[in-house]
Amino acid sequence: MPGMTAYAGFYEVCSPKKGETVYVSAASGAVGQLVGQFAKLSGCYVVGSAGTKEKVDLLKNKFCFDEAFNYKDEPDLDAALKRYFPEGIDIYFDNVGGKMLDAVLLNMRMNGRIAACGMISQYNLEQPEGVHNLMSLIMNQVHLKGFLVFNYYNLYGKFLETVLPAIKEGKITYVEDVAEGLEGAPAALIGLFAGNNVGKQVVVVSRE
Amino acid sequence: MPGMTAYAGFYEVCSPKKGETVYVSAASGAVGQLVGQFAKLSGCYVVGSAGTKEKVDLLKNKFCFDEAFNYKDEPDLDAALKRYFPEGIDIYFDNVGGKMLDAVLLNMRMNGRIAACGMISQYNLEQPEGVHNLMSLIMNQVHLKGFLVFNYYNLYGKFLETVLPAIKEGKITYVEDVAEGLEGAPAALIGLFAGNNVGKQVVVVSRE
Repeated sequence: MPGMTAYAGFYEVCSPKKGETVYVSAASGAVGQLVGQFAKLSGCYVVGSAGTKEKVDLLKNKFCFDEAFNYKDEPDLDAALKRYFPEGIDIYFDNVGGKMLDAVLLNMRMNGRIAACGMISQYNLEQPEGVHNLMSLIMNQVHLKGFLVFNYYNLYGKFLETVLPAIKEGKITYVEDVAEGLEGAPAALIGLFAGNNVGKQVVVVSRE
Repeated sequence: MPGMTAYAGFYEVCSPKKGETVYVSAASGAVGQLVGQFAKLSGCYVVGSAGTKEKVDLLKNKFCFDEAFNYKDEPDLDAALKRYFPEGIDIYFDNVGGKMLDAVLLNMRMNGRIAACGMISQYNLEQPEGVHNLMSLIMNQVHLKGFLVFNYYNLYGKFLETVLPAIKEGKITYVEDVAEGLEGAPAALIGLFAGNNVGKQVVVVSRE
């Protein structure tokens, strides 16, 4: 499912073109790591953000993002994005929502596209944070599309055709986060919201 | 320009289908009044909101909206929208942004479309209001597109082909708000933000 989500969200919702600039939040997550690799395969410049130094290293060294940064080290997200995208962002693949989306809106280029895939920063808030910079959608004619993977299963054949050879050739790789035993599941679930996992959080109930 | 804005925003950005439900804010404005009439021509159910009783009457009686309401009389915008759209909104043509957009987000239907045309409620605020309900974009797979009319002038021929006969046949009408004399211009400009105008605010400098 993360693979199809990344595939449908990036190729169908974002319509990438060679040379475009792509930003991915929660980029070491199961979806984000694939989006970044699809962006590289499409000839885009791609920057990812994550919440630990280890994840940032993974983005740069294992997943071959052009740049990556730890958003927790950035007191000013707008300034951070301007540093990595001095000419702005064509495509934002949003996994987090909230303040990050607000900062990205200040940095979108004309005719940019935002795929709203998840808003994990908001799920546990009683009242979601306000997003203030939506005027940028008008000024830059940005297309913001929320999507659910369930609507795109007709693409499953194309997805396999693209991804399976790329995995065999080593052009796409992935990392999963495996918790051993059902007794580890609650901690793993809580860990998702603390950003502890790297890639898809899987619970192995039994190896038998 | 309002005509082209309404035309491009409604037909190109919103892709209306017969029988869909359409909501227009600032509906007695120069753009809104045309969007509502285009929606009727397309076989849609259309509701508009405005800020005075006179404007609401105009929407219902002159522009033939199915329903119209005064948003200033509604302490709970979400409840008002649920009253007019018990099954939700397919298309929202947004001229105001802010709290209205937030309430609409709670009422969008699956695969709905929002054309972000203007955010007049926000222009004079030092800090724009926060929009909190963007998760709805994901849950309902909504497409939100900011647009500027300048990008759609290639449609000018099609626009004239659609609109001129409809005006001649009396299927489309419009109202302008004329201020006489250049000395009336500052008050007319301020009036825009107080919602005093009905339709396009025009200043007639001289009748000679």
